[in-house]
Amino acid sequence: MTNVKIRLYVEQALGAGQRLTLTKPQSHYLFGVMRQTEGAHLALFNGVDGEWLAQVVNANKRGGELDVVELRRPQADPPDLWLVFAPIKKARTDFIVEKAAEMGARRIIPVQTEFTNAERIRQDRLQAHAVEAAEQCGGTYVPEVAELSKLNQMLDDWPEGRKLMFCDESLEHGAPFDADSKGAPWAILIGPEGGFSASERARLRALPFAHPVSLGPRILRADTAAVAALTMWQMQLGDWT
Amino acid sequence: MTNVKIRLYVEQALGAGQRLTLTKPQSHYLFGVMRQTEGAHLALFNGVDGEWLAQVVNANKRGGELDVVELRRPQADPPDLWLVFAPIKKARTDFIVEKAAEMGARRIIPVQTEFTNAERIRQDRLQAHAVEAAEQCGGTYVPEVAELSKLNQMLDDWPEGRKLMFCDESLEHGAPFDADSKGAPWAILIGPEGGFSASERARLRALPFAHPVSLGPRILRADTAAVAALTMWQMQLGDWT
Repeated sequence: MTNVKIRLYVEQALGAGQRLTLTKPQSHYLFGVMRQTEGAHLALFNGVDGEWLAQVVNANKRGGELDVVELRRPQADPPDLWLVFAPIKKARTDFIVEKAAEMGARRIIPVQTEFTNAERIRQDRLQAHAVEAAEQCGGTYVPEVAELSKLNQMLDDWPEGRKLMFCDESLEHGAPFDADSKGAPWAILIGPEGGFSASERARLRALPFAHPVSLGPRILRADTAAVAALTMWQMQLGDWT
Repeated sequence: MTNVKIRLYVEQALGAGQRLTLTKPQSHYLFGVMRQTEGAHLALFNGVDGEWLAQVVNANKRGGELDVVELRRPQADPPDLWLVFAPIKKARTDFIVEKAAEMGARRIIPVQTEFTNAERIRQDRLQAHAVEAAEQCGGTYVPEVAELSKLNQMLDDWPEGRKLMFCDESLEHGAPFDADSKGAPWAILIGPEGGFSASERARLRALPFAHPVSLGPRILRADTAAVAALTMWQMQLGDWT
């Protein structure tokens, strides 16, 4: 397999023999920042068609062109897992999005809880961050970052059949997972740094589709809790087993 | 229990009735930055004596004094686990140290591998970072950050009886842990972003005390791998069970 150093996410369909015209930012990145020239090889993915080898045919910094050569790796989708989290400070929110992409969350959903400070997020910036993480971690999928919603509203509209793992700081031990847990669609919910409010916690505990887990005896920051919970899920119910 | 918002790590022994004189940086932080005044309560820990309630008796910004009132929580040490990692870019190295402190590593050891770029680290800065993480995460211990050493040298001097979990990217499945794994002293080794060299990998695989694990089918950054491996260890062999 031709060795490549650059992986680029594109929105176009990918197939052998296709010619792609790059956007201005993509061209600037490839030919300005990364100094690629005509004939250079790179890998492309679009979240659907797997990873493809491509070759530069025109290194114009305002709109270069690539030829798609051959399939390098088939599409590999992670299990059907969402990460729902309360946004925190910018750097740590970026970090959660990056880690969720690496750890194989399909959808990343920021929610406002009673103790969340963030009134708004920059969905476009977080989505770009998820794309960049996917480019770097070698995945062929890109998680979708949703707009900010309210936790209570989200629970009102919860999709039928999707289970919810939530991290309950007051628990010493989580319950074991049911036999039907594996293979089901899931979401992981990470609370804000201040924890859930009493009424939120009561509601979460009473939800028939919710499964509380414990992340050990130490207090974890929200970003640490996100990676730990994703690990726990992937080990027990996901594709790490 | 008196509610406190500030937790401070001190080097002095802690016991009821003691009076502590704070250092200039501690006094500046407490009375300058955090605006604490005489009579204010805070929590102290020193990594040995548990967490103590203390009260400000002199709010001098160059050298304040505290009275130690009573024990709030007994000392709680994490399991005997080290985190050995190859330092990466500054922000991500800081992050690994912070996460190791939160996740309950007792010792944090930066090592140079063949593919590590870092020639040196600022041990004092990383140690201060570990202290800050312990203050924030509610732990009563502070992991010790070691000076940078070379991986091969470290393996030559490996302490008898300590097991080593290492993340082998070429493995699809890790082996199950032996019966004597639980309760033994352990270390987790996280390689550099470029992976281990072929000779390092061969050496690691041949070590009788080494246990390879797989962190799933996606490529993880070193900082993500550190949190994921700490989670895996704590769930299977540590104090999360």
